[in-house]
Amino acid sequence: MNFTLLKTDSKTHARRGLLELPHGTVQTPIFMPVGTQATVKGLTPEILMQQGAQIILGNSYHLYLRPGLDIIERAGGLHRFMGWDKPILTDSGGYQVFSLARLRKISVEGVEFQSHIDGSYHFITPLDAMHIQDILGSDIRMVFDECVPYPSEYDYTCNSMKISIEWAKLCRAHHENDTSKRGLFGIVQGGIYKDLREQCAQALIDIGFDGYAVGGLSVGEPQNLMYDVAGFTAQCLPHDKPRYFMGCGYPWDLLYMVSYGIDMFDCVIPTRFGRNGTGFTLDGKIVVRNSIYREDMRPLSSECGCYTCRTFTRAYLRHLFNTNEMLGPILLTLHNTYFFLDFMQKIRDAIDSDTFLSFKEEMLTRITAGDTE
Amino acid sequence: MNFTLLKTDSKTHARRGLLELPHGTVQTPIFMPVGTQATVKGLTPEILMQQGAQIILGNSYHLYLRPGLDIIERAGGLHRFMGWDKPILTDSGGYQVFSLARLRKISVEGVEFQSHIDGSYHFITPLDAMHIQDILGSDIRMVFDECVPYPSEYDYTCNSMKISIEWAKLCRAHHENDTSKRGLFGIVQGGIYKDLREQCAQALIDIGFDGYAVGGLSVGEPQNLMYDVAGFTAQCLPHDKPRYFMGCGYPWDLLYMVSYGIDMFDCVIPTRFGRNGTGFTLDGKIVVRNSIYREDMRPLSSECGCYTCRTFTRAYLRHLFNTNEMLGPILLTLHNTYFFLDFMQKIRDAIDSDTFLSFKEEMLTRITAGDTE
Repeated sequence: MNFTLLKTDSKTHARRGLLELPHGTVQTPIFMPVGTQATVKGLTPEILMQQGAQIILGNSYHLYLRPGLDIIERAGGLHRFMGWDKPILTDSGGYQVFSLARLRKISVEGVEFQSHIDGSYHFITPLDAMHIQDILGSDIRMVFDECVPYPSEYDYTCNSMKISIEWAKLCRAHHENDTSKRGLFGIVQGGIYKDLREQCAQALIDIGFDGYAVGGLSVGEPQNLMYDVAGFTAQCLPHDKPRYFMGCGYPWDLLYMVSYGIDMFDCVIPTRFGRNGTGFTLDGKIVVRNSIYREDMRPLSSECGCYTCRTFTRAYLRHLFNTNEMLGPILLTLHNTYFFLDFMQKIRDAIDSDTFLSFKEEMLTRITAGDTE
Repeated sequence: MNFTLLKTDSKTHARRGLLELPHGTVQTPIFMPVGTQATVKGLTPEILMQQGAQIILGNSYHLYLRPGLDIIERAGGLHRFMGWDKPILTDSGGYQVFSLARLRKISVEGVEFQSHIDGSYHFITPLDAMHIQDILGSDIRMVFDECVPYPSEYDYTCNSMKISIEWAKLCRAHHENDTSKRGLFGIVQGGIYKDLREQCAQALIDIGFDGYAVGGLSVGEPQNLMYDVAGFTAQCLPHDKPRYFMGCGYPWDLLYMVSYGIDMFDCVIPTRFGRNGTGFTLDGKIVVRNSIYREDMRPLSSECGCYTCRTFTRAYLRHLFNTNEMLGPILLTLHNTYFFLDFMQKIRDAIDSDTFLSFKEEMLTRITAGDTE
């Protein structure tokens, strides 16, 4: 893989870049819709593509458990299995092992856990995590790491970080022999402790990766703390490599994180909120079940160019959710996905035209006017 | 509306025709996907159109209760409300009042019933049923009728039929003043009694409608009885008007009914089976959850040209249903809808090329080889 830094904003740390990957080129900053179980929930790959998705995320942990790697290998990899021929980034499974599975034992060798689906026992080493991602055939692979919860004590966070660094070395050594043009990203841990963040970032830079992720944030800490640590960590990372903030966030989070110099994002917010009947607009969120939309013949957003907004009214969307029709979640997921991807396009345009700071300020005022969840 | 009989098959009663309606032209014989609550479950209008849908069905009863007629009127009619600009046929609500709602009282004046949603009381007259369909703005409206269950005694069936005929007269009188080019269809009742069917058909012909439906079948009677009464009833109807068999059926049913001279069909089978993980193919049904498809890298049907079959394997579809992913029901609904519409296209082609009888025999052998439910 190859990353080209096209431009750095004059007033913030925001950057415009180009990621060249085996399955295509990605303009950064970029939002990656989440396709946990080999599908972005509710959208066909065709519809996903029409919304402007350039790269999506897959989850090693889920796919390893279901359908199982043998199936995906037989299918010829995750791209072919799920009918998506643009880039895919896969998470290593670390986050899910520590958040979803029942953890049994963690050591320098790896992690023993019980499946959240059927309670079966599994032991995964950092090398296993690489092999899994090799089989998935993703364009960008993530190192195996431990994601500590919030709050965590300093000592625990420090020890965990050291194990994650050892694992990162093993993953990097495996990648050495890789002849494909796929990338491998390191993940900076260290919880909310800036000295640990700095230490971890430096250790990963010394090992050397194709890109660097900020992990272990957006896990329950207060928003200002997340912003503070993320901004600090981003500045510990090399300029010439892409930076990825994992599992974030709301539109306002994206504005701040881009201003800190983050290039890549993934989050379940657009799909999860869409499924549950909440649509994002530049003027705040809309809960379509709300009775005030009963006779509202306006689109979700009159500024939005998505199929849902071009075709349907709020009253119709409300009707679909009220009657438990599948089309409701489909249309709102489509809209929210478009909204997030288009929002990133607007951010890229603003950086290109040197207006990012004023765009950010304007958007922050508008987008949180209706709500500030 | 206008109906042109293009051709009658030389060996069966099968017919090719052309229905000209306010929102477009429909080639018959035709299958109409069911859009009960202002949506064909699981499909956007765009996807529905791509599958070849020419006309869909809406349900007055459901739409009258939710979202309510005031909303649809404000939206400018059902077409605009649901984003579908091709023809729509609306059921009068008769069938649902007698099958879904809690019936309170039936008289020559109309029907009092309780909503199946909230138990609220409603009184609907035949004229109300017309007004409702006027507001929906459908291309083809159905008269209000009573659909008797199976089994029903001769006397009850006869009395009910007489009330339905009185109602049909009232609906027809209302239609007299209609300046739109929309159609009004009569519905032949009479249960399983051929003399009543003949009597009802003649009474409706005397009143005069734009088309004639065979109602009150496919309600639980044995298959051979359904075929026998449907075939008989079809031959009681005028040649120059379209004939519509309501609420039917499986692909094999369609073959028989077309051979009896039926032109129009609607059924929830493709959408309901798709939602529940069963796909139709020319070689029988496929239950994708079945473990034999775990590693099956073939499409649902190698002969099918739908997006699902062009893009995904049985193993992938099985994975989606196993993980309760929305995309499973979406993709199988898409496939089944395409399958039924394409099956009707094949039937039309066979009639056009004078090969319908042999097509029917060949298909009956193949399609029921795997199952004969």
